[in-house]
Amino acid sequence: MMKTAIVGASGYTGAELARLLARHPDFELCDLFVSSHSQDAGRKLSELYGRLQGEVDLPLQPLNDNTLKALSGQYDAIFLATPHQASHDWMPELSGGRAVIFDLSGAFRIKDKQVFSEYYGFDHQHGELLDQAVYGLADWHQQGISKAALIAVPGCYPTASLTALKPLQESGLLDAGQWPVINAISGVSGAGRKASLNSSFCEVSLQPYGVLGHRHQPEISAELGAPVIFTPHLGNFKRGILATITVKVAPGIDPEQIDQAYLRAYADNPLVRLRQTWPKIDEVAGSCYCDVFWKLDPASGHLVVVSAIDNLLKGAAAQALQCANLRFDFQPQTALTEESVCNH
Amino acid sequence: MMKTAIVGASGYTGAELARLLARHPDFELCDLFVSSHSQDAGRKLSELYGRLQGEVDLPLQPLNDNTLKALSGQYDAIFLATPHQASHDWMPELSGGRAVIFDLSGAFRIKDKQVFSEYYGFDHQHGELLDQAVYGLADWHQQGISKAALIAVPGCYPTASLTALKPLQESGLLDAGQWPVINAISGVSGAGRKASLNSSFCEVSLQPYGVLGHRHQPEISAELGAPVIFTPHLGNFKRGILATITVKVAPGIDPEQIDQAYLRAYADNPLVRLRQTWPKIDEVAGSCYCDVFWKLDPASGHLVVVSAIDNLLKGAAAQALQCANLRFDFQPQTALTEESVCNH
Amino acid sequence: MMKTAIVGASGYTGAELARLLARHPDFELCDLFVSSHSQDAGRKLSELYGRLQGEVDLPLQPLNDNTLKALSGQYDAIFLATPHQASHDWMPELSGGRAVIFDLSGAFRIKDKQVFSEYYGFDHQHGELLDQAVYGLADWHQQGISKAALIAVPGCYPTASLTALKPLQESGLLDAGQWPVINAISGVSGAGRKASLNSSFCEVSLQPYGVLGHRHQPEISAELGAPVIFTPHLGNFKRGILATITVKVAPGIDPEQIDQAYLRAYADNPLVRLRQTWPKIDEVAGSCYCDVFWKLDPASGHLVVVSAIDNLLKGAAAQALQCANLRFDFQPQTALTEESVCNH
Amino acid sequence: MMKTAIVGASGYTGAELARLLARHPDFELCDLFVSSHSQDAGRKLSELYGRLQGEVDLPLQPLNDNTLKALSGQYDAIFLATPHQASHDWMPELSGGRAVIFDLSGAFRIKDKQVFSEYYGFDHQHGELLDQAVYGLADWHQQGISKAALIAVPGCYPTASLTALKPLQESGLLDAGQWPVINAISGVSGAGRKASLNSSFCEVSLQPYGVLGHRHQPEISAELGAPVIFTPHLGNFKRGILATITVKVAPGIDPEQIDQAYLRAYADNPLVRLRQTWPKIDEVAGSCYCDVFWKLDPASGHLVVVSAIDNLLKGAAAQALQCANLRFDFQPQTALTEESVCNH
Repeated sequence: MMKTAIVGASGYTGAELARLLARHPDFELCDLFVSSHSQDAGRKLSELYGRLQGEVDLPLQPLNDNTLKALSGQYDAIFLATPHQASHDWMPELSGGRAVIFDLSGAFRIKDKQVFSEYYGFDHQHGELLDQAVYGLADWHQQGISKAALIAVPGCYPTASLTALKPLQESGLLDAGQWPVINAISGVSGAGRKASLNSSFCEVSLQPYGVLGHRHQPEISAELGAPVIFTPHLGNFKRGILATITVKVAPGIDPEQIDQAYLRAYADNPLVRLRQTWPKIDEVAGSCYCDVFWKLDPASGHLVVVSAIDNLLKGAAAQALQCANLRFDFQPQTALTEESVCNH
Repeated sequence: MMKTAIVGASGYTGAELARLLARHPDFELCDLFVSSHSQDAGRKLSELYGRLQGEVDLPLQPLNDNTLKALSGQYDAIFLATPHQASHDWMPELSGGRAVIFDLSGAFRIKDKQVFSEYYGFDHQHGELLDQAVYGLADWHQQGISKAALIAVPGCYPTASLTALKPLQESGLLDAGQWPVINAISGVSGAGRKASLNSSFCEVSLQPYGVLGHRHQPEISAELGAPVIFTPHLGNFKRGILATITVKVAPGIDPEQIDQAYLRAYADNPLVRLRQTWPKIDEVAGSCYCDVFWKLDPASGHLVVVSAIDNLLKGAAAQALQCANLRFDFQPQTALTEESVCNH
Repeated sequence: MMKTAIVGASGYTGAELARLLARHPDFELCDLFVSSHSQDAGRKLSELYGRLQGEVDLPLQPLNDNTLKALSGQYDAIFLATPHQASHDWMPELSGGRAVIFDLSGAFRIKDKQVFSEYYGFDHQHGELLDQAVYGLADWHQQGISKAALIAVPGCYPTASLTALKPLQESGLLDAGQWPVINAISGVSGAGRKASLNSSFCEVSLQPYGVLGHRHQPEISAELGAPVIFTPHLGNFKRGILATITVKVAPGIDPEQIDQAYLRAYADNPLVRLRQTWPKIDEVAGSCYCDVFWKLDPASGHLVVVSAIDNLLKGAAAQALQCANLRFDFQPQTALTEESVCNH
Repeated sequence: MMKTAIVGASGYTGAELARLLARHPDFELCDLFVSSHSQDAGRKLSELYGRLQGEVDLPLQPLNDNTLKALSGQYDAIFLATPHQASHDWMPELSGGRAVIFDLSGAFRIKDKQVFSEYYGFDHQHGELLDQAVYGLADWHQQGISKAALIAVPGCYPTASLTALKPLQESGLLDAGQWPVINAISGVSGAGRKASLNSSFCEVSLQPYGVLGHRHQPEISAELGAPVIFTPHLGNFKRGILATITVKVAPGIDPEQIDQAYLRAYADNPLVRLRQTWPKIDEVAGSCYCDVFWKLDPASGHLVVVSAIDNLLKGAAAQALQCANLRFDFQPQTALTEESVCNH
């Protein structure tokens, strides 16, 4: 059993990670940590998340500078579900030891330090670690992930967008003259577990935000290798992301070629489901899948491709665990599908 | 045109009051005030509530000790949509002048000062004003309201509960040996406009709270003249309250007597609708009505009566305006029904 | 008082029309009709819509072939909230008499009969009436509407889309080489009042539909004068539409020119609100406004413009009434804003 | 591996059963059946429930009279998620053979045939089977269930109500002079998967129904051994039931005695969670637990106890599987908790 810990376990992503690790046959969830300033320090995780009573009753231990130093020697894997700045600041202490680090923050996702400071509001101080970090898009970078010491797990919008777009781009099907238009709608849990007027029940109602300036736009573009228009929205539901993507395909591309591109990418991957109908939030919420479906207008060359994920699972915790499965050489879907839970 | 102002106009109730007053043919909404500490001071109300753009674009003026003193001379009516303690503390300054005060807080609803401190957490310092205050249950105390200088407008739970129960009690139909059981479910707007984890979108889900200890229990009991069990719940909707009330009627009471009790109370009142089907949140949300329906089990003498209101309107702003209509001798429903809006 | 009737009054749009007409100072709502096959025939509208009790208690009269013939002579205005085929079939009987016809179906919106049959599934038999029909986009075709005998009121998606796009197109700001991408999300009421698994509470969850083949695509393109990509979605809310539209502007266009285009179109129009923040469903739901906001990426020339309306009001009933206000020479916003309700 | 089949697998409960059986280590889900009239016959279950793609892709086989006869010999367990009448009519064919029958309908829950016909609208023809049937309240009748040939699995309201009330009644704590008042609110999935105006997205809004006449009232009373008032409500959420129950305890009962009553009943049962806070729908939705919490007003002797379950799981499919675990001598919670899934 691999020994694991979660830092930042009190948030929505941390709690999902805890639940997934607790049911994983090969990982042992040993400890949960929160910032020493957190008012949740000392409470059981199941006091914050009543649904976890009887499933994950571990306490949230306060993490201070001393305990931080020791962490890396105590576990095989450490999952960081921490704010960007905390991941950035703590990484030198955490990395380089026995533990493989799975960072769910944005601190090590963007290689270009100038773009990073523009979008994250502080300068990146750890260029070497940034260079080493592998982008944990688990359905695409199995090779790199399997050897990495630091894995920067992408978040919900890039995962939904890139799962839909990369097969087209990798197969050279996109018309480079027209930027893909990504319209994505996220559930409110994407804003994290905190008191905020913006995510207050009475204030939430479908609305765009971060238009033409969201930090996931450069991340998606960099990983795709092409500029995109990315327009995120807040939707009135708790979990899930739906990305509706409109692209133009290169002249002469037919449906068969598009089909092949997706099959090449995902035919043997149980975690990406090529659907026969349009994805729907409720069909992925609570699951670790990414659902994808598309339609081409052959006359004009416009293609609409839609992907859907659970933002906290495939878009965060489950992808981190998928990376961990790859890193420690387990089946990628272990503990992520019902079937894999049963048949191990 | 009567001149009016709202103090505490930035909250959900204040905003509804502003909207109602703005469309009232006989009241002029002159000024909106917020606490001088409010971060909303100086902003237009329609910046906080985009839906009011073009309807109520007045600014939220900061209220300090000096302006407070002057208020009472400047308006015919002042509406307080302020915290309990603020209403309590400011009342000596505000009352006693030209302006009639409509207080939507709980500061002057409970006559028993000992009960008050137990449930509100501070001692009541203004016994004389408390004695003068008229309980603004507008469908019942028309007489008192029409002459009052200070009207303590009841909130959402007591309004829903008492509208359903008072006709039974006043007609002597209740079995005194069994306490009425009030199960009420409120929309989240009842918790007010503020950042709070409890009213965060992802945390809200049907749940009871304040069981056997909510401050509306003694208020309902006092006004009803009989003890009750009151169990409030938070529901996953924005506006509205549904109260499901189970009582035992006195031996021998038949449906006809119950019918007569409700007709006596409300037959000529367009704001209380005796329905032919069970009330439903969506049928009152956004309206100023209280809907009521009931059913008797003659064999056992159990009666279930259900009432529904919009918590911010009939349970707050609209009831305050109904009191104001009574106080200034306008038709009680003026500006509260579509019809009255059109036909003045 | 102009005499009016609604045919197809039992549906969501019909009920909203009834409510609006009932509070209009210059129109009298005389009669409500439903198909003689309707199981709602003979019931009061307020039995179907409990919230209308005390406001619109008129009965739903069954409409048969004989009564149909007589209608046109009995009213000044007839509103059809009927299925496409019914509007189409009944129009020869209804039109040509005293009554001006406001048709809220799609039967007379598309001038090209071939496109019509392709998207509506039946052939258009009434070419002459189709030619006479004026497209009732009320914020744009005031002139035509004011003289028309038959007005084809556009529905929710075209209204939201065109309100956002027409100022850009009319001012020549769009890059003709790239089709506008319209992503729109509608509340479930857009599907109408009927038992259907697709709009069943447990089945509804954010999902696209009608991708690259929806009947509103050619309607929008025809009225705009340019091809568009239109991707509708069903959202998990009852009322409202949000349209997020991505376009490319012609080289050299700056924000000032865009601003001017919108001001030219709507500066004096109280029913289109140029906002300072992104539109939000809840800020238009229940209102008769269209809210619009936009942002330009000057470097790439991409512009995102977002509009929001209540699908049943500005996207149906309120627009029909706005057309009627224009047709009978009342202020366009009469009975559509709170203010206009109060100040007439 | 025990061989199992589900009859009526296309509904919400059937689909949940399929999911649970598919991940059970000791049951094999062999076949899914639907009525031969069902329009879903021949489709895969995952075509109806996209979220099951890759998890339960079995087809829905049409069940006719001939196949019906053969079923009982082919499986060790048959689960009926069928309408009451279908279960009733088919039971003679299905029972008495090799297969143990788990009936999730109401056909064999009420022993009193007169009460049955009154509440179910048809006469019970199979008195002998009715006598044999064991009431499958799995946390209470382990003994009987472990030997039964026909198990009548109770539905959602009785399970939530009885889990909360039976410990009090069995320990003799209730004041017999006052009927327990059960106010319960169910998610819309309780109405089943069908096109219906009542469960249409736009029509659903918190509302009571079946007041003083619901068929679960006599079922709860019979199993509890005491009359109750049961008032069900439809809530605006998909899954879950919350029951708020007000009782009067016998004179002199103190909190310690109540505590003991619940501990005696459930201390060793991982599927009933005695909570430290009030149950909440989201904390049980999607899980197989029943959560319980209570508070006593010692002065008046009123006790409020609240229970919450997922209506389709603990209130249907999971309880059926719990019965099956008991019947075949597996750990009761097998495949019902995350832990039990991992640790077998």
